Amino acid sequence: MRAAVLRGGRMVYRDDVNDPVPGPGQVLVDVKACGICGSDLHFAKYGDEVLSLSGQVQGMPSGDGGVDLSADVFMGHEFSAEVREAGPDTDAPPAGTLVTSVPVLLSSKGVSPIVYSNTTIGGYAERMLLSAPLLLKVPNGLGPKPAALTEPMAVGLHAVNKSNIDRGETALVLGCGPIGIAIIAALRHRGVESIVAADFSPKRRQLAETMGAHRTIDPAEGSPFDTTKPAVVFEAVGVPGIVDDVLRRTPVGSRIVVAGVCMQPDTVHPFFGIAKEVNIQFVLGYDPAEFADSLRAIAAGDIDVAPLITGVVGLDGVGAAFDDLANPGSHCKILVTP
Amino acid sequence: MRAAVLRGGRMVYRDDVNDPVPGPGQVLVDVKACGICGSDLHFAKYGDEVLSLSGQVQGMPSGDGGVDLSADVFMGHEFSAEVREAGPDTDAPPAGTLVTSVPVLLSSKGVSPIVYSNTTIGGYAERMLLSAPLLLKVPNGLGPKPAALTEPMAVGLHAVNKSNIDRGETALVLGCGPIGIAIIAALRHRGVESIVAADFSPKRRQLAETMGAHRTIDPAEGSPFDTTKPAVVFEAVGVPGIVDDVLRRTPVGSRIVVAGVCMQPDTVHPFFGIAKEVNIQFVLGYDPAEFADSLRAIAAGDIDVAPLITGVVGLDGVGAAFDDLANPGSHCKILVTP
Repeated sequence: MRAAVLRGGRMVYRDDVNDPVPGPGQVLVDVKACGICGSDLHFAKYGDEVLSLSGQVQGMPSGDGGVDLSADVFMGHEFSAEVREAGPDTDAPPAGTLVTSVPVLLSSKGVSPIVYSNTTIGGYAERMLLSAPLLLKVPNGLGPKPAALTEPMAVGLHAVNKSNIDRGETALVLGCGPIGIAIIAALRHRGVESIVAADFSPKRRQLAETMGAHRTIDPAEGSPFDTTKPAVVFEAVGVPGIVDDVLRRTPVGSRIVVAGVCMQPDTVHPFFGIAKEVNIQFVLGYDPAEFADSLRAIAAGDIDVAPLITGVVGLDGVGAAFDDLANPGSHCKILVTP
Repeated sequence: MRAAVLRGGRMVYRDDVNDPVPGPGQVLVDVKACGICGSDLHFAKYGDEVLSLSGQVQGMPSGDGGVDLSADVFMGHEFSAEVREAGPDTDAPPAGTLVTSVPVLLSSKGVSPIVYSNTTIGGYAERMLLSAPLLLKVPNGLGPKPAALTEPMAVGLHAVNKSNIDRGETALVLGCGPIGIAIIAALRHRGVESIVAADFSPKRRQLAETMGAHRTIDPAEGSPFDTTKPAVVFEAVGVPGIVDDVLRRTPVGSRIVVAGVCMQPDTVHPFFGIAKEVNIQFVLGYDPAEFADSLRAIAAGDIDVAPLITGVVGLDGVGAAFDDLANPGSHCKILVTP
């Protein structure tokens, strides 16, 4: 079958990947749409660094073992798919059912994240395996493209849930890439009445407004903190220096939710945090209930994700799409439709 | 009158300081005991840096204006004192009453912290001014020396309150200087059933046990995280590198309370925090209710602070005491008794 794989730092098109065979509890599915995530771009460029850092983190649940960057790597964790064939003794929805799932594959060997793997095929492929007990049927006739946004929107929902923000509190979202936009949508869905979003890109600021920001700020024209006194700051930029700048400028007693994934070492002045008793909540991912909530909100029309989809490519276009996404501001979410 | 003042980075004894005159709402008091705080040592050594950093913190309540390091600086914010004379039209306890207070002086000009000042005299002096509305009578016949520990113990109580730790959760306290010890006492007072404390100094580990730690660890013999899986880590060391090491080693979902005051820039790997969804709460000081709770707990005998007092000096011994305290492990709290 066809797939796009990471080989030597580039996404490469292949048409000779063996079809995976579903084991007990597994389901073979036809991928209908799969979003390209910023973390995929980062892994393509800095995979060795990501693996090295992951190995240094003590106390983490173990993944599915090592990834060999000298061999092809499967990726793609934001997908919708149609059921094709269930494995032996497996209770699954009928063939043709549109589903999505948290990106985890259960097998007799254990739990494998569907994220970066030499063996577990992800959504940048014609077909992949999913876990029958984790499948969620896509309701309300929602199409496969918006359904593929369930995962990134769940990331935003989780960040907002962890913030415990009240409706009356002001939220400042720094960075209006896909994570920032998902946070804005979740804040609006929660009923937060003052959502301010900052990004250098006019296109992204426009999208932020479309998705629910009450006000947008161009940081080139001055610090967002000059005109906003947020109770909660959502950091969705993920580059070194941002957290220290926020610590320096944020109001006394404010909370910072770090949703941007900064892989590099970062320098901060703890004194700024101490002097203002700041709280920093690092967040990552979501829980299965939040994933299901995200799908429900999209399918019910509470969150319209259509404006986020700024491009659609086939499996042979994934390499070029990765290049396009390296230029921030021109795209939000590109979907791969195998 | 006599006082010890900071001059050119050293504590200098003076006997020619003018007695302060209480204004309306103020009370002149005889200082009975004043603890030397690590922050005083730090200010003596790095005052210019502290003032520069404080100036960079936006959103902070303003203090009492600038401090001129080329002139004498009054310090001393952990005090007990006897009422001597009330200012005009001032309702105050009778002369001779033993009191303490949050270190803040109210005047017609505004609110001045009693911490570092060229004009507002602190507890390293024979006499000082306090604010009548903020005075707390020392109850139960508690002596002036333990009463002077109200302030540092309030710092520990506040850190523990901000952690929201449950009794059944494990606390790991890194650093058993005065702040770490105050945290241990507050944890024990709260009923936390598993308190682990780490310090390189055998004397400090001994004191940690006396004050309530259930187990102590010498970090020279291995990381505390090798044998402890804390829900809450109290960082009371305050040197660069500690927070990153905690982020790397702490369990998934744990909370870090940063009570150690690190004034230098510090490098962290946000990835460690993100991967484990760590929460960092920076803390500083206490609120007036916590200060009063601290005094009550000491006066009621719930927290015995006597073991913390490892030295007593006169005003002419403050310079030497600052030198002694630079050597960690030999002392916990030195009191100045004018």
